[in-house]
Amino acid sequence: MTTENKRHALGESTLAAITGGSGAAVVESLKDIAPDLAEWIISFSYGDVMARPGLDLRSRQFATIAALTAMGTATSQLRVHIHGALNVGCQPSEIIEAILQMAVFAGFPAAINGLNVAREVFRECDVTVGT
Amino acid sequence: MTTENKRHALGESTLAAITGGSGAAVVESLKDIAPDLAEWIISFSYGDVMARPGLDLRSRQFATIAALTAMGTATSQLRVHIHGALNVGCQPSEIIEAILQMAVFAGFPAAINGLNVAREVFRECDVTVGT
Amino acid sequence: MTTENKRHALGESTLAAITGGSGAAVVESLKDIAPDLAEWIISFSYGDVMARPGLDLRSRQFATIAALTAMGTATSQLRVHIHGALNVGCQPSEIIEAILQMAVFAGFPAAINGLNVAREVFRECDVTVGT
Amino acid sequence: MTTENKRHALGESTLAAITGGSGAAVVESLKDIAPDLAEWIISFSYGDVMARPGLDLRSRQFATIAALTAMGTATSQLRVHIHGALNVGCQPSEIIEAILQMAVFAGFPAAINGLNVAREVFRECDVTVGT
Amino acid sequence: MTTENKRHALGESTLAAITGGSGAAVVESLKDIAPDLAEWIISFSYGDVMARPGLDLRSRQFATIAALTAMGTATSQLRVHIHGALNVGCQPSEIIEAILQMAVFAGFPAAINGLNVAREVFRECDVTVGT
Amino acid sequence: MTTENKRHALGESTLAAITGGSGAAVVESLKDIAPDLAEWIISFSYGDVMARPGLDLRSRQFATIAALTAMGTATSQLRVHIHGALNVGCQPSEIIEAILQMAVFAGFPAAINGLNVAREVFRECDVTVGT
Repeated sequence: MTTENKRHALGESTLAAITGGSGAAVVESLKDIAPDLAEWIISFSYGDVMARPGLDLRSRQFATIAALTAMGTATSQLRVHIHGALNVGCQPSEIIEAILQMAVFAGFPAAINGLNVAREVFRECDVTVGT
Repeated sequence: MTTENKRHALGESTLAAITGGSGAAVVESLKDIAPDLAEWIISFSYGDVMARPGLDLRSRQFATIAALTAMGTATSQLRVHIHGALNVGCQPSEIIEAILQMAVFAGFPAAINGLNVAREVFRECDVTVGT
Repeated sequence: MTTENKRHALGESTLAAITGGSGAAVVESLKDIAPDLAEWIISFSYGDVMARPGLDLRSRQFATIAALTAMGTATSQLRVHIHGALNVGCQPSEIIEAILQMAVFAGFPAAINGLNVAREVFRECDVTVGT
Repeated sequence: MTTENKRHALGESTLAAITGGSGAAVVESLKDIAPDLAEWIISFSYGDVMARPGLDLRSRQFATIAALTAMGTATSQLRVHIHGALNVGCQPSEIIEAILQMAVFAGFPAAINGLNVAREVFRECDVTVGT
Repeated sequence: MTTENKRHALGESTLAAITGGSGAAVVESLKDIAPDLAEWIISFSYGDVMARPGLDLRSRQFATIAALTAMGTATSQLRVHIHGALNVGCQPSEIIEAILQMAVFAGFPAAINGLNVAREVFRECDVTVGT
Repeated sequence: MTTENKRHALGESTLAAITGGSGAAVVESLKDIAPDLAEWIISFSYGDVMARPGLDLRSRQFATIAALTAMGTATSQLRVHIHGALNVGCQPSEIIEAILQMAVFAGFPAAINGLNVAREVFRECDVTVGT
């Protein structure tokens, strides 16, 4: 297998592990407007970066959720990665904690808006917060 | 002990565990200009939020480091929390991973600037990245 | 009354003065997902911070509206605080000025988006801008 | 013609060249809430700034689209300026490139969200990307 | 006097009232690289916007300080406008309050960084916070 | 040559064309802390993205400079890309225009801070703005 194929294959499997979706679906969603972006998402974001062994997938998802909550400009990506956190074994209550913590670092509006996204995802997944 | 004293005491111990510093030093650093902010940092940020049992301190530090790297406006706080991550048992290589991952979510400049802060902290602490 | 009860009570009354809403409603809105956040909003945001005597409520609302307009990531909170500004005696035309001023500091898109929120709030409240 | 009239007239013609819209429509859209903002948009943004001869309109639109994509807080203004880019002769595929490039500088979520806006504009304009 | 001259003159006097500086100094500081920006600062920012009668200068400075603190990307402008707030009669303790309040809306790092700027300005001006 | 080698080689040549620097220097600067980031900068940022034929290098630099100016969190990267803009044939006066335009979209502080970076780069390169 060529290096390029390996990057793609590794990205595919990491993408599946985190988002539960397939690379084919990513390609399909972008093929009309920017097919190369789909390839970058698979090979670079998931193959080169998220697949790296140096940090476990749970920690990676807490990092992503915190960052997207703090930025406040990436609601649909936050939704994907809250799903992803559930997929890699983060507890709903832990996801809430990572979002709540952003009240300290990025302010209450960021935390509240992040929680509203989490609530939607939890409902879609029929998940309850064990508080 | 009153509730207020409990919040402060819990904040003090959490602050010590993460930053290695004392509440007294925080109070000292702000007493000339905003003494109440020092109390909020201890009782609210560390006592109410960071001390919560629902997420382990390592995960909390990955979340904080990722968010501050992505925001790009809080260099000195990022420095404090990279120290903090080392204090609660995050490996230097794991800290690097959390920062690198921000290249995907917040862009390469955010990741590069975050790494430069990590490099300084690692040097101060005489820590080497086991790559 | 304990310190903790005092913080909560002061937060409740400040929240009522600014938003016109009750702490009970805040608690209700978050009890399914993050009940402690409701308590922080009441006791910390409104009790510890917004209730402080050192700055009048009108000036606090101008500060909040300007910041949320400039940030551009907190539309629903901007809506709440434009309502809040009307509640504490800010004139509609003054609210518009604070938002317009953000064209200078955060750019025209921020100011235009902020004005669109103000227009919606003014319509809900049947308020007209006395220009 | 007075200087003030010249600024307004130059702004009107630049606004028409870029957005395809009229100053009258801008004035109409803001006359209920902030009529002076309409005048600033015409005379300052388009008359003083965008009309300057030192940079061609195509380059100005690439700059605007890149900045609004990176900021992530100005969706409706990004929509206007993608229309504007088409109006001044930018190719759809070039607009996509400017947005894609933001994956490097502002992260993948910013680029993906920008592309989604471009897709909508291209559909409205019955434009296809020549990939 | 022409409209253009009136805008400039009004901007000059507003600039002087807020910053204590002269339009000539602004022009001097930018004449090597972007002389027209100096004119925009005087005529647009201070003449068209900040000089408007609909909001008092104290409220305008609280709005500006809050926004620049929340944004976190404009340290030198925050410095100028903390000076400006003192010039138009804001009390040091009130300026601190406006900055502290940003802990709620933009997070503790923004508030702490804003306070550090205020401390420097107060020292330069030999001002003490009456706490 | 493998695909991976092609990406690297293309990235190297694009990096050289824009920054005037070598991939070896990028690798050197990051080898102590995050050697893979150096490879991503070369192969992904410059090889996959910036090298794409769909948009000329001048337009790409205007887009980058505008975005980094608007974001306000990437001073050292803005410096690199103003150098880069000069390297690919952008006139100093055009670079100033792209930065000035950000006063409209991201506010005056962003534009002023961007200009200060440009001034430094122009001095380093002994370039004068032909105004």
